[in-house]
Amino acid sequence: MRTTVGIIGGGPAGLLLARLLHRTGIDCVVLESRTRSYVEQRQRAGMLEQGTVDALRECGAAGRLDAEGLIHQGIELRFDRERHHIDFPWLTGGRTVTIYAQTEIVKDLVALQLAEGPPLLFGAEALAIEKPESGSPVVRFLHEGREQTLSCDYVVGCEGSHGVAAEAFPAEVGRIYAHEYPYSWLGILADVPPSCEELIYARGPGGFALHSMRSPSVSRLYLQVPNGSDVRDWPDERIWDALDARFAIDGDWRLARGPITSKSVTRMRSSVHEPMRYGRLFLAGDAAHIVPPTGAKGLNLAVSDVRVLARGFAELHRTGSTELLDRYSELCLARVWQATRFSYDMTRMLHAQPDGDAFEHRMQLARLRRITASRPAAAELAANYTGLPLAL
Amino acid sequence: MRTTVGIIGGGPAGLLLARLLHRTGIDCVVLESRTRSYVEQRQRAGMLEQGTVDALRECGAAGRLDAEGLIHQGIELRFDRERHHIDFPWLTGGRTVTIYAQTEIVKDLVALQLAEGPPLLFGAEALAIEKPESGSPVVRFLHEGREQTLSCDYVVGCEGSHGVAAEAFPAEVGRIYAHEYPYSWLGILADVPPSCEELIYARGPGGFALHSMRSPSVSRLYLQVPNGSDVRDWPDERIWDALDARFAIDGDWRLARGPITSKSVTRMRSSVHEPMRYGRLFLAGDAAHIVPPTGAKGLNLAVSDVRVLARGFAELHRTGSTELLDRYSELCLARVWQATRFSYDMTRMLHAQPDGDAFEHRMQLARLRRITASRPAAAELAANYTGLPLAL
Repeated sequence: MRTTVGIIGGGPAGLLLARLLHRTGIDCVVLESRTRSYVEQRQRAGMLEQGTVDALRECGAAGRLDAEGLIHQGIELRFDRERHHIDFPWLTGGRTVTIYAQTEIVKDLVALQLAEGPPLLFGAEALAIEKPESGSPVVRFLHEGREQTLSCDYVVGCEGSHGVAAEAFPAEVGRIYAHEYPYSWLGILADVPPSCEELIYARGPGGFALHSMRSPSVSRLYLQVPNGSDVRDWPDERIWDALDARFAIDGDWRLARGPITSKSVTRMRSSVHEPMRYGRLFLAGDAAHIVPPTGAKGLNLAVSDVRVLARGFAELHRTGSTELLDRYSELCLARVWQATRFSYDMTRMLHAQPDGDAFEHRMQLARLRRITASRPAAAELAANYTGLPLAL
Repeated sequence: MRTTVGIIGGGPAGLLLARLLHRTGIDCVVLESRTRSYVEQRQRAGMLEQGTVDALRECGAAGRLDAEGLIHQGIELRFDRERHHIDFPWLTGGRTVTIYAQTEIVKDLVALQLAEGPPLLFGAEALAIEKPESGSPVVRFLHEGREQTLSCDYVVGCEGSHGVAAEAFPAEVGRIYAHEYPYSWLGILADVPPSCEELIYARGPGGFALHSMRSPSVSRLYLQVPNGSDVRDWPDERIWDALDARFAIDGDWRLARGPITSKSVTRMRSSVHEPMRYGRLFLAGDAAHIVPPTGAKGLNLAVSDVRVLARGFAELHRTGSTELLDRYSELCLARVWQATRFSYDMTRMLHAQPDGDAFEHRMQLARLRRITASRPAAAELAANYTGLPLAL
């Protein structure tokens, strides 16, 4: 097989890139190691920055998003038994975010891709990328029981962390900057209408909790737990009790309980792969960088990477110039580091450090207090949360 | 001896409080353990927030400050071999800071106090505060070789950290929140005109450096050094070489060298004593809280404590109400914790962690980059640096 752009990974980054390229008349092939039903059911975040919504609209993939997505005008911060609304439009000059699950975006993009092309191969496991530094890189992959090759002009690794794309960078070229957090998230889905209209980020007794939602009848909640926690140690009642305690305020508010349909524990880490390009091989999304879920930047960063890349390929296709592609790593990393910083700061402001002393806790409260008392501090949170501009 | 307000410590906090009380017609006595020449020569910071300048003017102690103080419109941040100006008036709606050494403020206040009273005793070492919870606390002190007592209606501890005032809090009442930083500052005075017009805060190779000034002909410079450093290991040339490296930018700028007239190493710590009042005993300034020198909040916090206290005593004197005095601790601590947070964040953003990994360094650069690229982030720095409002 041969194509112009070989895309490894059929998550939102790979599928959106394929869609954007297809609309510019650039042919590509997407290789996805899992099955269609697996990728369509993978639970991930669902907070979309304005730029992410714009990108999906631009490529005609926002029909259901526009009908079903929930526009959020802000978030709520809770600490010291108080609640505080952070008003995004007021603080940012009109910006909002949209709640629409990543799973749904994947479903929308898969359906479009299968209907209109370009080729999307499920169960196609990339094994290696050969000669990324040459003018004709090759992806070796396993599909339908046999090894095949995809010859490309360019290869884009969108296959998430620990993939073959990052491995194809020579050791002396690529460097990973990483940080592990000393806590995890226990996430649940519950069949109960959300007890809030906006996301609630809480710093309560024992640490962090987040109240989010999937739909008007399904709540998504998260709880800080120690690393190494096992869902079997968290019967439903223990989870609801911990959530109750962390969301508690002085005043009239109650967390509605309901049947928990899913439980999982996720470790938290930050990592950035520098550079994001080697020869004719590009990394995009989780293949290049991981953020902790606090602030929900992962999907949005993947989309902004892919937007830069799609414009770079479009420029090459139209004018023959590689100028934008040559700046890909630099342009993306500037934004990636800012989102990494924001996720790191949000995470550290809201989670109890297992070895945390009383001084550190006071620092967290002072930070939260400042955000709720000061316009510039709140504006800075809102600007980062709703998404920094793409420097194009 | 007997007085209404017994003040322990004749630094800027104690002297300013005495001056403010005196002008309201409240009698007080200041006990200072050191000699006049010692307190007039103690080198400390010299960056005054607008509120600090206002307080000195309000009590007629700003004659020389107004003539000799240097108004600064901003600071410069240096990192990645770039320089960036942070414009305070533009970011804060007109606020500035004034450079005038704490030593000079002390001289001005001592001269006024000795000319117009109330009594200021040098060489008067407070030994203990008795019955702070009663209506008539007593300060025992050593003066001219013999132990004496000062009977008061109220006692204010302004004698810096590790003083008798904080010790008079029962263990179950007072709590100290503290943080030690893993680096120190090597500070020098040099007989050379400053190489800059505003303060330069630099994050360069090896860590932090600060270029400040005492006068048009005297520079004050600081350098991050490891804890336990000895000035004997830092000959002049080594200091200038390290400063050169940390301030280096791509472009035309040179650090002028000159004779170094003073060298000292200072450890850095944060600490906050909660509450700041017990019975009829109040803590103000360093007796209640210590900040690292980054951002120069120490003197300014001391002045804001004393302003709250002076107003509280004035209200009591005028109306008999202790309402404001009763809120002293709460009012001051809100501001103290914000300044503590700001000093902590400024310190951590600019200093190399001895055990710092590459990820943390990237976080510092992302933070600095954000401040220099974003109005809300820069406005937040400027608001904190020029001083948060006093919540009265």
